[in-house]
Amino acid sequence: MPDDSAPLLPDDTGAPPGCGPLGAPGAAAARTIRAQVFDRIRAMGRASRIDLAKDLSVSPASVTSAVADLAAHGLVAEYPLPRAPGDPARGRPPVALGVRPEAGAVAGIKLSDTVHSAVILDFAGQRLAEATLPSGALRQDTGALVAAAALVLDAARAGLPPGSPALRAVGVGLPGLVDHATGHVPWSPILADRDVDLRAALAARLGLPVALDNDANLVTLAELWFGAGRHLPDFAVLTIEYGVGMGLVIDNRLYRGAQGLGTEIGHTKVQLDGALCRCGRRGCLEAYVADYALVREATTALNWGNRGVASPTVLLESLYDHAKAGNAAARAIFRRAGRYLAVGLANVANLFDPSLILLSGERMRYDYLYAEEVLAEMATLLLDTGRPPPRVEIRAWGDLVWAQGAAALALDLATATALTAEA
Amino acid sequence: MPDDSAPLLPDDTGAPPGCGPLGAPGAAAARTIRAQVFDRIRAMGRASRIDLAKDLSVSPASVTSAVADLAAHGLVAEYPLPRAPGDPARGRPPVALGVRPEAGAVAGIKLSDTVHSAVILDFAGQRLAEATLPSGALRQDTGALVAAAALVLDAARAGLPPGSPALRAVGVGLPGLVDHATGHVPWSPILADRDVDLRAALAARLGLPVALDNDANLVTLAELWFGAGRHLPDFAVLTIEYGVGMGLVIDNRLYRGAQGLGTEIGHTKVQLDGALCRCGRRGCLEAYVADYALVREATTALNWGNRGVASPTVLLESLYDHAKAGNAAARAIFRRAGRYLAVGLANVANLFDPSLILLSGERMRYDYLYAEEVLAEMATLLLDTGRPPPRVEIRAWGDLVWAQGAAALALDLATATALTAEA
Repeated sequence: MPDDSAPLLPDDTGAPPGCGPLGAPGAAAARTIRAQVFDRIRAMGRASRIDLAKDLSVSPASVTSAVADLAAHGLVAEYPLPRAPGDPARGRPPVALGVRPEAGAVAGIKLSDTVHSAVILDFAGQRLAEATLPSGALRQDTGALVAAAALVLDAARAGLPPGSPALRAVGVGLPGLVDHATGHVPWSPILADRDVDLRAALAARLGLPVALDNDANLVTLAELWFGAGRHLPDFAVLTIEYGVGMGLVIDNRLYRGAQGLGTEIGHTKVQLDGALCRCGRRGCLEAYVADYALVREATTALNWGNRGVASPTVLLESLYDHAKAGNAAARAIFRRAGRYLAVGLANVANLFDPSLILLSGERMRYDYLYAEEVLAEMATLLLDTGRPPPRVEIRAWGDLVWAQGAAALALDLATATALTAEA
Repeated sequence: MPDDSAPLLPDDTGAPPGCGPLGAPGAAAARTIRAQVFDRIRAMGRASRIDLAKDLSVSPASVTSAVADLAAHGLVAEYPLPRAPGDPARGRPPVALGVRPEAGAVAGIKLSDTVHSAVILDFAGQRLAEATLPSGALRQDTGALVAAAALVLDAARAGLPPGSPALRAVGVGLPGLVDHATGHVPWSPILADRDVDLRAALAARLGLPVALDNDANLVTLAELWFGAGRHLPDFAVLTIEYGVGMGLVIDNRLYRGAQGLGTEIGHTKVQLDGALCRCGRRGCLEAYVADYALVREATTALNWGNRGVASPTVLLESLYDHAKAGNAAARAIFRRAGRYLAVGLANVANLFDPSLILLSGERMRYDYLYAEEVLAEMATLLLDTGRPPPRVEIRAWGDLVWAQGAAALALDLATATALTAEA
C-alpha cells in the first residue's frame, strides 16, 4: 500500500487531463503525475501506457508507477481492446487501461429557478440514472433548497440499476456567486439567504462529501473534461438562461479569479446608466440579454397589460411566436437582445482572445437570440487584427449536461477521498 | 560544459520567478528549474540556495545543480552579505547568490507617438544608461520607425560608462497589436504600414537579437518582474495614454491569449453605437477615456474653433486648467471620461476578479481622470459579492519604466542566447 496521505488530486481547481500545478518535482510531482494519469485515462476512455507517457510528456517508467498505484487502489484496470482490422490474431491480445466503473459512483445536481436535475455516473463516467423535478419557487431559503436537492437526488437514486456501485460524493451547481474553495454562496438568485455555507448544509443533509460550484463553471468543466477542452487549451463558455453566466478556460484550467468568484460577464456594463439589472445596478449585459430582461418587455410588446402572471417560458415562447408573425415590438426586443449579445461576444473576444466561444444553454434561446446577424454584428465590433475572429459554436445542452459537470467535480472529490481513505 | 542545446528559458511567454511551464519532468524539468532559479535570483537581488529551494518548492539538490550550471555559464556568482546586527563576526562570512552584472547588458526601447525612450541595463538589472528623443511624426513607415529606434538606442549607448558589458539583446515595445511570438505587428497606431515583420527589420538594423511586445504588456512585465508581481499571482494593469491598453497576469504569468494578441480592453464596447474610436468602430472604451477622445472635444469646450493644430498635451493641459477654473464644458469632458474609466475598471473587476488593478501612465492623466469619485463610481458598478472590491493603485511611471520592461524581455532573450551559444 503506498505511503500517501495526500489526496490523489493535489488541487481542486478543475485541473484537466495533462495539467498539474506548476513546477512541482519530487514527491509532489509524483502525486501530480498520478492525478494526471488518472484524469487522462478517464478522458480517453481507453489508454495505453505509451500514449499516456507521450500525451503527458513524462517517462514511461513514471506512467507505469502511477498506473500501479492507481490499480492498487482499485481505480484503474486493464481491459481488452478489439484487434485492429488486418492485425493478425496472434500474440498477446491488445489491452488498454481504463477506469474501473465498479470502483464507485458519483452524483451531480444542478439547481435552477425552474427545474432541479440530478445524474449519477460510475467512476468511468457512464450515466447510471437521472432525474428532473420542478423547482417550485424562484427563490427559496437554505433549508428548502437543501431539501429539494435531497429530493431530486433520491429520485435519481430510485432509478439506479441493481448492483450499481455505492455513491461516494456529490457535486452541486447553482447560479450566482459561489466560492468553490470554501463552499460558501455569497449570493444566488435562487437563494433567499445570503452568505450561506451551502456545502456544509448539503453535506450534512446528504451524508456525503459535497463539492459546490457556479453553474456556468460546471458547463465549462463538462466541456473541459468531456468536450472542447480535450483539444483546446483556451476557450470561453457563455451561458444564457434566466441570467447570463460565463466560464473561462486558460491554459487547460478553469479560471477562478483571485477571490474565487471567477468571471461575471453578465454584470459587465455595456451601457452607462442603462437598463436595470436584477443585481440592482444599471447597464449590465444580463439586463439586455437574459430571459428576465426579455420577459419584462414582453408584456408591453404583447399588450398583455395586467393579464396576470405567466411563466417566463410561456411569455418568451409567445413573444417569439409574435416576432415570427411580424409583430414589430416583439421583433425589436429580440433584435436589441441580439445586438447586445454581439457586444458581449465581441468583448469576450477582445479581452480574452480565445480560439473558441461556446454558447451553452437551451436550444430555444439560440433560435431567437442567435442568428447569422448576431455573428455578423460581432465581427463588425471586433478589432481588425488580421486574424480570423474566434469560432462561435452553440452547445444546446439540457440541464443534465450541467449536472454531468457537477458529477465530474464530484468524481475528482471522490477519487481523492478514496485514495486518502485507503492509503 | 553542460550538454544543453535548448535555450535556458524554455518559453518566452513572460514566465516570472517561480513559474515554469506545466508538469515537465526529466530533462525538460531540469531546464525549467534552472530558468526558475535564474529568474528568482534576478528578482530577489541576493538569494540563498535554501531560500530558493523553499520559494520554488524544489529540492536543495536541484537548486545546487541549477546554480552550478548557471555559474559555469558566468551568469551567477556568490557575493558577500553584510552580517546581521548581533551576528558574531566569526565563522564563514555569509554569502548569497546574485546575477553577475558583468555578464552582459541589454537594452529596452519604448516607441510611442510622442517620444521614444531607451534604457540599458546590466544582467543584474542595474540601469547603466538611458535616452529619450521626440518621435516626430504620429505615424511613420517601417523604415523611419526602425531608424528612430536605432537613433534612440545610439543616444543611450553614448551615455554608457566606460567598461560597460557588451549589449546582448534588445527588447522593443510599441502600442497596438503585437504578436510577441512571431515579432509581427498586424497594426499599430504609430505605424503607417500593416502586418509588418518589425522584429526582423529591427534585428537587421540593430545587429542584435530583438524581442518585441505590446507596450502595455511591457509595463505589466515590469510590474511582474520588479513590482507588484513579486507578491501577487493575479493582477491587471490598465494604461491610459494616447490609447488605452491592458496587461493581465494570471497565476504569475502574462496572459497572451490564444492568438498571441492578448487583452484589448481599450476596444471593448461600453456603448452600442457610441463614440467613434480610432480603430474605426463605435463605442470602444478608448473612445471615451484616451487622450485623443478628450482632445477632440477640447476644441469645442475651449471654443478654439479652427485656431490651428496644438499638440494633444498642450490641448489637454489647457483643458484641465479650464476645468479647474470652473469651465462647465471642460468639466463635463473629464467627468464623462472619469465615469467611463469607472466602467472599464468595474468590467475588469467583474471579469477577472483580480486582487489589484494598477493604473499605469503619466501622472498628469490621473490628476484629471482619477479621483475618489471614479473609485466610488466603480464601487457602485460592481456586483455586491460580499468581498472587498479589488485595490486600485496608480503607478505614475514615466516611459523609462516601460522601457525597463522591454529590457527585462531582452534579458530573457539574452540569457537564453548566452546559454545556447556556450553550450
